[in-house]
Amino acid sequence: MSDIVDWVAVDWGTSNLRAWGIATDGSVALQRHSDNGMGKLAREDFPGALSELLDGVTSTRNGPIDVLICGMAGARQGWLEAPYLEAPADLRGLLAGAVHPAMPGSRFAPAILPGVCQKAGADNVMRGEETQLLGLAALQPGFSGVVCLPGTHSKWAQLSGTRVERFSTAMTGEIYEVLRTHSVLRHSLTGDLDGPGRADGFVTGARAGLDHPEQLLGTLFQVRASALLSGRQPDWCAGYLSGLLIGTEIGSNRHLIGQQAVPLIGSSVLCALYAQVLGMIGATGMPQDTTNIVLAGLKAARSYAA
Amino acid sequence: MSDIVDWVAVDWGTSNLRAWGIATDGSVALQRHSDNGMGKLAREDFPGALSELLDGVTSTRNGPIDVLICGMAGARQGWLEAPYLEAPADLRGLLAGAVHPAMPGSRFAPAILPGVCQKAGADNVMRGEETQLLGLAALQPGFSGVVCLPGTHSKWAQLSGTRVERFSTAMTGEIYEVLRTHSVLRHSLTGDLDGPGRADGFVTGARAGLDHPEQLLGTLFQVRASALLSGRQPDWCAGYLSGLLIGTEIGSNRHLIGQQAVPLIGSSVLCALYAQVLGMIGATGMPQDTTNIVLAGLKAARSYAA
Repeated sequence: MSDIVDWVAVDWGTSNLRAWGIATDGSVALQRHSDNGMGKLAREDFPGALSELLDGVTSTRNGPIDVLICGMAGARQGWLEAPYLEAPADLRGLLAGAVHPAMPGSRFAPAILPGVCQKAGADNVMRGEETQLLGLAALQPGFSGVVCLPGTHSKWAQLSGTRVERFSTAMTGEIYEVLRTHSVLRHSLTGDLDGPGRADGFVTGARAGLDHPEQLLGTLFQVRASALLSGRQPDWCAGYLSGLLIGTEIGSNRHLIGQQAVPLIGSSVLCALYAQVLGMIGATGMPQDTTNIVLAGLKAARSYAA
Repeated sequence: MSDIVDWVAVDWGTSNLRAWGIATDGSVALQRHSDNGMGKLAREDFPGALSELLDGVTSTRNGPIDVLICGMAGARQGWLEAPYLEAPADLRGLLAGAVHPAMPGSRFAPAILPGVCQKAGADNVMRGEETQLLGLAALQPGFSGVVCLPGTHSKWAQLSGTRVERFSTAMTGEIYEVLRTHSVLRHSLTGDLDGPGRADGFVTGARAGLDHPEQLLGTLFQVRASALLSGRQPDWCAGYLSGLLIGTEIGSNRHLIGQQAVPLIGSSVLCALYAQVLGMIGATGMPQDTTNIVLAGLKAARSYAA
């Protein structure tokens, strides 16, 4: 690897900041990352965080080095708000919608890609996932169907080539965390959560969620009741809660899932769980290499210049 | 009112402790309350909290004064665990299932009523609500149908006279609180939550929950998206979240609701909201006077001696 690059691709999320220096032949010349995610930075901290991460990076070109950024750096509480494209949206328009935060005296010329929103009574927003979707479209040209991006706020998007037709957000990961930490269920979720009972709890919860996604407010309480009445241990309860939430999410999106495999973009642990639950309804989940997807998305976004 | 009583009825919940001295003619001779709920007491604090509340209370009888207690004092983390009756259960058996914590040297003879549980793959528990259900059965003899007890953990019970056939728990109130306080939705729920937009948000959320209870993980995120995209204010967002959760709870129990009015037992504010949402599907909610209900339940429990 080398510090000499053509341009720099950046994924700036809530918790992490990752950069790839791209050589003139399109290969990755360098990779860097830090924990300077949007969540811990004030607006004025962004230029310094980027300069620090890219210290010593130089270009063969004259003039400033392009830095193409996707993710939460473009949120209202980020570096500079990048307005949303409105779905249905062709993601080839991402670069044309980018904003350009000032970085006076710097060797870098940053551009932040927009997110995608949806209005007309189905208000929704994504920021970062649109670049991943464009990456999927670039790596699987002609793909048309539903894509699932599991996470704190899972996204389900209908993709047609480079077009996002519509999408929704499920608060699955965040609900798991707030219930585990702050609700009465925490009493049943303290101790070893990764013991041998977890797998059985997961399947039991997933089945309940898949079969009755409309009963979530009720089935959640079974975490507590099962611990009190059936002596379920924390590992089983944690598996049940995780399975219940993922099963409910997939169950509520069942009408979107056809014969075609559902691409899964997210952490490998989470994607494996989603693939398992998709298998329980005879569907197939296809976990993607998320780093490849993000990188392909940033490259593709750059290739469709305004 | 007088400090001379025949026996004492006590509702000992998580947050509050309420007592009524009952005269020999069945009338209420005195009322007292404190904030010494189960939640803030260690096991050894219960006798002192009761003695303090009943200071100066005397009886015309010889011997100790019966104190009949329902609620969380009988929980595992309470004064003394009262085992559950298992549903289907005839609530006339509550007193026979009571436990008798020791109170050496005291003028009081406390008994704590059991809760009701449900097993066989539908694990569930209630503690306190069973006494309210018996109170309803006493005040409306022959009532048969579904009863809703809105709250932190709402209960929906199928009641036939004094029998609880089956029941479920919805974590509606607690989900509202943890999301409002700890999730990303809190950014849209800070400020004046009781402004003029609340009513419209409530109806919009209730409609979404009633129509699509299976979409809760997704519709929850619309609190945030509506604030970001449509400029919804905190009052509207708080109303939407409240309506969405209540609508989802009622929507998921729709199959239990017939032509008959649904008795609502809980805080008057909450019961009014549930009655409003029941009205949106052409059903009728019938808010009860909860104090009357609890008192009737404790009296009825005492009347069915073992």
